[in-house]
Amino acid sequence: MTNRFPLKVAEKIGQLIQTHQRFILTTHINPDGDALGSEMAVYWHLKSLKKQVWIFNQNAVSQNYCFLDPEKVIQVFDPCKHEAILRQAEVCFVLDIADWQRLHKLAKWLHNDSIVKVCIDHHPIENQLGDINIILPEASSTGEILYRLFKQLKVPITIQMAQAFYTAIMTDTGCFRFSNTSAATHRMAAELLELGVVPSAIYQKIYEQDSPGKIWLLGQVLSNLQFECDGRIVWFKITEAMLRQAGISRQELEEFTDFPRRIKGVEISVLFLEQGTDHTKVSFRSKGTIPINDVARELGGGGHPFAAGAVVGMPMDKAIPST
Amino acid sequence: MTNRFPLKVAEKIGQLIQTHQRFILTTHINPDGDALGSEMAVYWHLKSLKKQVWIFNQNAVSQNYCFLDPEKVIQVFDPCKHEAILRQAEVCFVLDIADWQRLHKLAKWLHNDSIVKVCIDHHPIENQLGDINIILPEASSTGEILYRLFKQLKVPITIQMAQAFYTAIMTDTGCFRFSNTSAATHRMAAELLELGVVPSAIYQKIYEQDSPGKIWLLGQVLSNLQFECDGRIVWFKITEAMLRQAGISRQELEEFTDFPRRIKGVEISVLFLEQGTDHTKVSFRSKGTIPINDVARELGGGGHPFAAGAVVGMPMDKAIPST
Repeated sequence: MTNRFPLKVAEKIGQLIQTHQRFILTTHINPDGDALGSEMAVYWHLKSLKKQVWIFNQNAVSQNYCFLDPEKVIQVFDPCKHEAILRQAEVCFVLDIADWQRLHKLAKWLHNDSIVKVCIDHHPIENQLGDINIILPEASSTGEILYRLFKQLKVPITIQMAQAFYTAIMTDTGCFRFSNTSAATHRMAAELLELGVVPSAIYQKIYEQDSPGKIWLLGQVLSNLQFECDGRIVWFKITEAMLRQAGISRQELEEFTDFPRRIKGVEISVLFLEQGTDHTKVSFRSKGTIPINDVARELGGGGHPFAAGAVVGMPMDKAIPST
Repeated sequence: MTNRFPLKVAEKIGQLIQTHQRFILTTHINPDGDALGSEMAVYWHLKSLKKQVWIFNQNAVSQNYCFLDPEKVIQVFDPCKHEAILRQAEVCFVLDIADWQRLHKLAKWLHNDSIVKVCIDHHPIENQLGDINIILPEASSTGEILYRLFKQLKVPITIQMAQAFYTAIMTDTGCFRFSNTSAATHRMAAELLELGVVPSAIYQKIYEQDSPGKIWLLGQVLSNLQFECDGRIVWFKITEAMLRQAGISRQELEEFTDFPRRIKGVEISVLFLEQGTDHTKVSFRSKGTIPINDVARELGGGGHPFAAGAVVGMPMDKAIPST
């Protein structure tokens, strides 16, 4: 990340924090390591200044990230229960999400409210929706942007904050290997390690928590891959019966489509996931040469160039040949 | 890596390079990313000084590391063929290996010869076997030591050398997540990225070259794991028939024992690998709490505390219950 955000913006945020008392933090649905790490880093900073802070997310923290929130301060947003807090909140940090739609239920509360909105994100967007925005697509993660902001504001980084920041950059860069990893990302990691972060401990907490059922189903999938186009396309299916047999939820399938890209020559990996008797979710992952969001769009879905998907209105047996 | 090696040692090596003409580089059997990356970085430096350089290894470069050696300069050591070269060589760099035994065939040539031996390694050892030694167990990798040595000697780092160094540290730290990753490791990665290294490209070359047969067999293994001791021990077997059916070599099994450690609660993973009709190789991997080299030693083998193995003189069906 070479671009620095204007010093003025950092100062503005610093002043905003100084002069207000009641803060809300939120992020996108199904929050990942960057979303949760960013929220918790901001939370601890605000708490150290004796502010009142609430974190409202659309979903509960998944088990592998619970270590980030030992005091269980993150709440699943409930419009009825949290209305009074929202009405009195002065500032909302919208983190790792530059799209109102991804705020779901919270969107309508924040959109028309007098609350000051600060958006910090690394996803490219068209409409800046905050009163103050730091949107840096060249950053690896929202955590990286916040870390630089905090350094600029001379915020003391505690070990808890360092672990949250490390989680953010480590997960969003796929362990420092995705194309969003820059020299600045590694320098930030170096500083976080000097603050006491133990990489192997955090890695274990996040990535070594698989259930036996998930690994069993992954085994079933890997020994039944179907190859097309001289092995450049690989596909596999997961039925509801398979999920039941494995005893796992759909959330645990997240990595499955990535995995077959390890095979030499594979460019695209496709998962057909049964959804009831008449719908099939199709997930596409590309190794990075052939974009696949056009195909997903044709099927009524969408996504990023190299990670996209769609839900088609037909049973799996029909969806596979027609895709 | 906080300790610097004495400036004197660096200067000595610099002088040795300046004043000699014929160099041999070697490393341990089954060379990994650190071994090969270190060799190639030294090779390119010596070649830039117009020196004569040979790399003699015990094994061929495995396919995923071939990109490090585009001109195919690494040779499999052949005592008959290479005797004349060995007799005339002046300096030998022994890299990533501080144990004569791991030099195999080359050991007897180097041990009694008048050749000057420079050992550079990050494995802890008892006997320093070189005429000049840089043995730094606190370094992540031999590549990290060499990089610091080169910087101290003001050696210009080309993009080829940067890629070799990056491969060394990335593979030996498990993508910057093992306990040997330090702030210095990340700072080195930052500098290498600034020299033009593209992490995703190197990752793909090394880790996304699996054969369909390997992935099929991994699937078979993962869907047939056996759990003991409340799920803290997991074991699986691979027969010669399974290897034939997958059409893969034993080398491709390297990662298999690591994989089940992803399961929550698993402390130890054990592979029983059939070797002919009356031998079984047993490989142990521990998550890092329970050392397993004692068990391996009892079976007549050995290894590191958390990665060890043995070959037992009985067929697999007997080896499993007796282990």
